[in-house]
Amino acid sequence: MHVFVLGGIGEVEAGADLAALIADAAGSRLRDGDILAVTSKIVSKAEGRQVRAADREQAITDETVRVVATRAFPGGMTRIVENRQGLVMAAAGVDASNTPDGFVLLLPVDPDASARALCAALHERTSLRLGVLITDTVGRPWREGQTDIVIGAAGVTVLDDLRGTTDASGRRLDVTVAAVADEIAGAADLVKGKTSGNPVAVVRGLGRLVGEPDDADARGATRLLRPSENDMFRLGSAEAHAEGFSEGYTAGLAAAAVDAASVVSVTE
Amino acid sequence: MHVFVLGGIGEVEAGADLAALIADAAGSRLRDGDILAVTSKIVSKAEGRQVRAADREQAITDETVRVVATRAFPGGMTRIVENRQGLVMAAAGVDASNTPDGFVLLLPVDPDASARALCAALHERTSLRLGVLITDTVGRPWREGQTDIVIGAAGVTVLDDLRGTTDASGRRLDVTVAAVADEIAGAADLVKGKTSGNPVAVVRGLGRLVGEPDDADARGATRLLRPSENDMFRLGSAEAHAEGFSEGYTAGLAAAAVDAASVVSVTE
Repeated sequence: MHVFVLGGIGEVEAGADLAALIADAAGSRLRDGDILAVTSKIVSKAEGRQVRAADREQAITDETVRVVATRAFPGGMTRIVENRQGLVMAAAGVDASNTPDGFVLLLPVDPDASARALCAALHERTSLRLGVLITDTVGRPWREGQTDIVIGAAGVTVLDDLRGTTDASGRRLDVTVAAVADEIAGAADLVKGKTSGNPVAVVRGLGRLVGEPDDADARGATRLLRPSENDMFRLGSAEAHAEGFSEGYTAGLAAAAVDAASVVSVTE
Repeated sequence: MHVFVLGGIGEVEAGADLAALIADAAGSRLRDGDILAVTSKIVSKAEGRQVRAADREQAITDETVRVVATRAFPGGMTRIVENRQGLVMAAAGVDASNTPDGFVLLLPVDPDASARALCAALHERTSLRLGVLITDTVGRPWREGQTDIVIGAAGVTVLDDLRGTTDASGRRLDVTVAAVADEIAGAADLVKGKTSGNPVAVVRGLGRLVGEPDDADARGATRLLRPSENDMFRLGSAEAHAEGFSEGYTAGLAAAAVDAASVVSVTE
């Protein structure tokens, strides 16, 4: 596997033709089976998702579908939420870096659709079988530091389902579904970095994960989203505890009232 | 960045000299600044961590320091726990694949120490500045599929702290600490796969993250572990809810008793 950045893409303006920018930056360097990992920031900017927001906190609230966990810190509040795109992330993915004062950058409305459009446009220009992954940076429970993940995908197998296959000893691999798209996003982040102005990396050597152009839509990133009802961590520990306490308190009062009522009834 | 597997390592027995096996498999292919991503399985096997266990469930209990979340499924129970190594993972990292019946494979006792020993032994053989990462496969909240992470490290910067640096527009990056070691583990997994008998990958092109041999111990994987007291997801949602309910119920009964006592006292 070989991973390299496409330099020379520069600042992306609203309405920009990303496929043209990427194809120009790539010149003749793209090959059949390449995967393009594209930082969501430039997709958002091209789609005009930089919006005026006097209040970043209100912008986060507006993008929130479900609050997962909050924690106060000196001077503010960390909010981990499920956003309109179904992603669980801090600040709903609302970004106030790389934007002028008084503006925030929202995630693409439908990142899978953005990836499909970019994949199709690149195919039209190059006639190559390519995959497109739109990436963003997130924190995670239990471990320090952030990693890049995939929020939109086209033409790339995002989950490599190895269940039913066997390990080197011939024993069945029971629970292994590799989240290869997120691993590719992380690999691309290692060469793109956060600060270098390199929003696109090419990942070569994983052609086995790249589909034919006409089934690009069968490989969206939404299948990486675990439905909250199946998630053992759908709510922060403190939030779940508080919810339980409140329900328990009410139940305790009610149980005491039943007891008291039975005492009264015995007395009478 | 270039990632390739070292073929020809074959089955690893207890007591095997991993540095010799890896150096032989590499031949003259290693370069200064390379990072070796080594699947924890072969480190465990070399360290004799394949142990007899009539009952895998008991082995998981024995490796558990703290239960994070459990969920019953038909025929069993998923247990997500913090294990002796401080890692939050399903089944405490106890592995019953790739082992004979009646045996399980435990994680290395101290994966950072294992990485340091391997790093030092490889340096002695090659005189190269190398990094060593010991990897394992884990699931994660909120997202489907599993990714590889780092459980032991030597000679590699595991967290790339970008706080205080600036983005392409000159704005400060406030909260970005990239978990580069986990991203490298994921990149290596993409070429190693789960089933192919390729337990070691070489990651080239990230020499900026590789330290001098004498400060290998300054770069352990334990710094990737978030202390549970700082973790908003230290306990599963259902477990935290149940704990809260129980405490709330007791508090509700007590509050009712105080009320009842004050009624009695007024009556008297």
